[in-house]
Amino acid sequence: MSAIQEFVTAHRQEALEELQELLTIPSVSTDPQHKADVERCAEWVHKRLESIGLDVETLRTPGHPVVYAERIVDESRPTVLVYGHYDVQPPDPLNEWRHGPFSPTVEGEFLVARGATDDKGQFYALVKGIQAASEVFGEVPTNVKVLIEGEEEVGSIHLAPLVTKEKERLKSDVVLIADSSQFARDVPAITYGLKGLCYVELTVRGAKTDLHSGSYGGAVANPANVLTRMVSACQGTFGRVGIPGFYDDVRDIEDWEREAFKQLEFDEEKFRQELDVKKLFGEEGFSSLERRWARPTFDVNGLISGFTGEGAKTVLPCEARAKFSMRLVPDQDPEKIAELVTDFLHEIAPESVEIEVSSLHGARPVLVPRQGKSVQAAERALTHAFGREPVFIREGGSIPVVNTFKEELGIDSLLIGLGLPDDGAHAPNERFRIEDYYRGIVTMASLLEELAK
Amino acid sequence: MSAIQEFVTAHRQEALEELQELLTIPSVSTDPQHKADVERCAEWVHKRLESIGLDVETLRTPGHPVVYAERIVDESRPTVLVYGHYDVQPPDPLNEWRHGPFSPTVEGEFLVARGATDDKGQFYALVKGIQAASEVFGEVPTNVKVLIEGEEEVGSIHLAPLVTKEKERLKSDVVLIADSSQFARDVPAITYGLKGLCYVELTVRGAKTDLHSGSYGGAVANPANVLTRMVSACQGTFGRVGIPGFYDDVRDIEDWEREAFKQLEFDEEKFRQELDVKKLFGEEGFSSLERRWARPTFDVNGLISGFTGEGAKTVLPCEARAKFSMRLVPDQDPEKIAELVTDFLHEIAPESVEIEVSSLHGARPVLVPRQGKSVQAAERALTHAFGREPVFIREGGSIPVVNTFKEELGIDSLLIGLGLPDDGAHAPNERFRIEDYYRGIVTMASLLEELAK
Repeated sequence: MSAIQEFVTAHRQEALEELQELLTIPSVSTDPQHKADVERCAEWVHKRLESIGLDVETLRTPGHPVVYAERIVDESRPTVLVYGHYDVQPPDPLNEWRHGPFSPTVEGEFLVARGATDDKGQFYALVKGIQAASEVFGEVPTNVKVLIEGEEEVGSIHLAPLVTKEKERLKSDVVLIADSSQFARDVPAITYGLKGLCYVELTVRGAKTDLHSGSYGGAVANPANVLTRMVSACQGTFGRVGIPGFYDDVRDIEDWEREAFKQLEFDEEKFRQELDVKKLFGEEGFSSLERRWARPTFDVNGLISGFTGEGAKTVLPCEARAKFSMRLVPDQDPEKIAELVTDFLHEIAPESVEIEVSSLHGARPVLVPRQGKSVQAAERALTHAFGREPVFIREGGSIPVVNTFKEELGIDSLLIGLGLPDDGAHAPNERFRIEDYYRGIVTMASLLEELAK
Repeated sequence: MSAIQEFVTAHRQEALEELQELLTIPSVSTDPQHKADVERCAEWVHKRLESIGLDVETLRTPGHPVVYAERIVDESRPTVLVYGHYDVQPPDPLNEWRHGPFSPTVEGEFLVARGATDDKGQFYALVKGIQAASEVFGEVPTNVKVLIEGEEEVGSIHLAPLVTKEKERLKSDVVLIADSSQFARDVPAITYGLKGLCYVELTVRGAKTDLHSGSYGGAVANPANVLTRMVSACQGTFGRVGIPGFYDDVRDIEDWEREAFKQLEFDEEKFRQELDVKKLFGEEGFSSLERRWARPTFDVNGLISGFTGEGAKTVLPCEARAKFSMRLVPDQDPEKIAELVTDFLHEIAPESVEIEVSSLHGARPVLVPRQGKSVQAAERALTHAFGREPVFIREGGSIPVVNTFKEELGIDSLLIGLGLPDDGAHAPNERFRIEDYYRGIVTMASLLEELAK
């Protein structure tokens, strides 16, 4: 056992209790009723960072506050900027929880609570790792900066302006983020690719009011009919998106990467069983991992029109709405895609209806280096903590701050996932494996040690 | 002014107040929460029919009750069976009403409330007409039977067995129904054709829970994507339904009828303006009247899936639902069409999802005679009440009981429309022109007088 492991083992109980305390605070950022709780959570984080010897400042934004802390031990040493978020998703549906979402409970090897893995447990492991390193080595081995925000679950809307404003202070060599997951149980991973996002809302309007489908049906365009046709045209067939020009900037999966994905020996049958579907579906000619990590997709996120209650109502609705989003891969540009979609929708919309297209949300796809000093340090740190080398993976989700740090500060992110793929982020009974929490602490302390070498 | 007209004019206020009282009862037959209101509405109708001197009995069904009343003045005279329904459509969307849907309000020349025209205002005009005739002539001029049901808006499911059971008692020469509309303002109409209906609900299910569209999108079928494709395939293109075999039994519009439709000089431009659309839409090669009255159609009535609130939520929904209905023309059979649709949906459903198809509602299309004693009597009565001769029209809506009466009792129906085409049946702010209500009363009293001649 290394000195770091010994220290972490000796302080397990204390580390667990602190995390449990953090998880009792219902810092639901999207819900105005929890504003005071979010504030209280920021204060809690502020105090904890102070107690481990960092200089802390709570930075105000028009929304929830950002807690910033730093410890500069030697200007000539590398600087790590740790990013995390203390806000959480709403706990709904409440009735599916086995206990209160903010009453963290140990169930076997897991700690169950809203935010356990996303992202309180993960970012707090990094914080505890800084503490472990400074106690084991008498001082933090490298410079550390910590930025914990409270609006990740609502789109990090105030973070980019703040990063721009605090450019000087945030200067670092690498950003470290633990907000994803291991590839599989006990298989640590470094994520080097994230998909981008283009989220669109389409509204189709017909006659000025809902009509009787008997008296008017067939003689006036039905917006719900039109909407299904339009969405159908956009999504294309065989998993290949139908929007003209959509694939123009898609970078093909290279042979080495296709091979690397294969080496991961992803179990498609187990994946199918976990999803509980008869058959998987996706773009023809690609494996599930390729589809999830490196191919752009089109998903309807919501549909609403007309009568949706029990039974039959023969209404011809005056309006229909769809929300849909496209996950993007390098080198697709979310703004260009939004334009392509909008143009296509206007082109195929029949003259008999009015349409409105709004672009709700965008994020650029990103690939970070798989080589370099920081990545190698992370490989060694993860190996040290997990007892096996990490694999390199990509992710289908988007972490917009990764782009923010790259664009505003010119820094690449290092994404290490401490959670498990089935931790249930955003779902009821969200959990974090306690062992993974401790391993996260070891990983962080070890990473700081490695970076200082 | 005729004696009938004088009587009706003298009793306008009383007739209006009674209708308003009837309209305050939220007799929404499809909603179990309104079960007691539906019952209360039946009691109200029972009492009113009693008060005008009929023998009344409330007949029980496994669903909502049917109110039956009769007055046999002379076995040798003709017998009219009046049919109507006291149940109404749900008032949704509530926020589009200018006032409570069950707080009937006079707005200019209209009475605004759910059920105003469909069918409380119309059937109650017939009831008041019976009263007017018996008061003006000292006795009802012919035998009358009255059958007011409470399940028309949910497909009249229990009416057919009841009609079969009460065959003897219901024997009549003609069924009179006021549940449609004038051809245009002040142009009374006799409806000789009704469309049939086949109403279907399609549920598409994917993974066992909602998923994160980033982590899973593109690698598992999205039920909302699939649903839009399936509905799109069913609806076809250019207004021509895409379900194989759908047109097999469609009777072509004959030359004389096409000519008769033309004679009505339907104003397409005015129709377009009333609907407030840039362009009308419908099956190619047919006029708006032909599309509405004599061609089968496909309309989505409702869509629901995933996230439908404000803003963006990147969910990959586990379920999507569509309600849609096809209006049928002679000689399409609703059961055969339901089978064709179900088969087609199962045929085109990808293996990656589970689908469920429920047939919610069916009605046979119908054509009734345009000649005969009763039709001539109705022509004279309408001319008397409206000051001009009625035109002969068809309707896009369905009145399934017309089939029931034909099949079970062998009696044809006489369909007179007292409402206006833009009364907004099934829509928010449904209304009935108060003058048309009074004319309906005159029409009924006059019809009884004419039939007795």
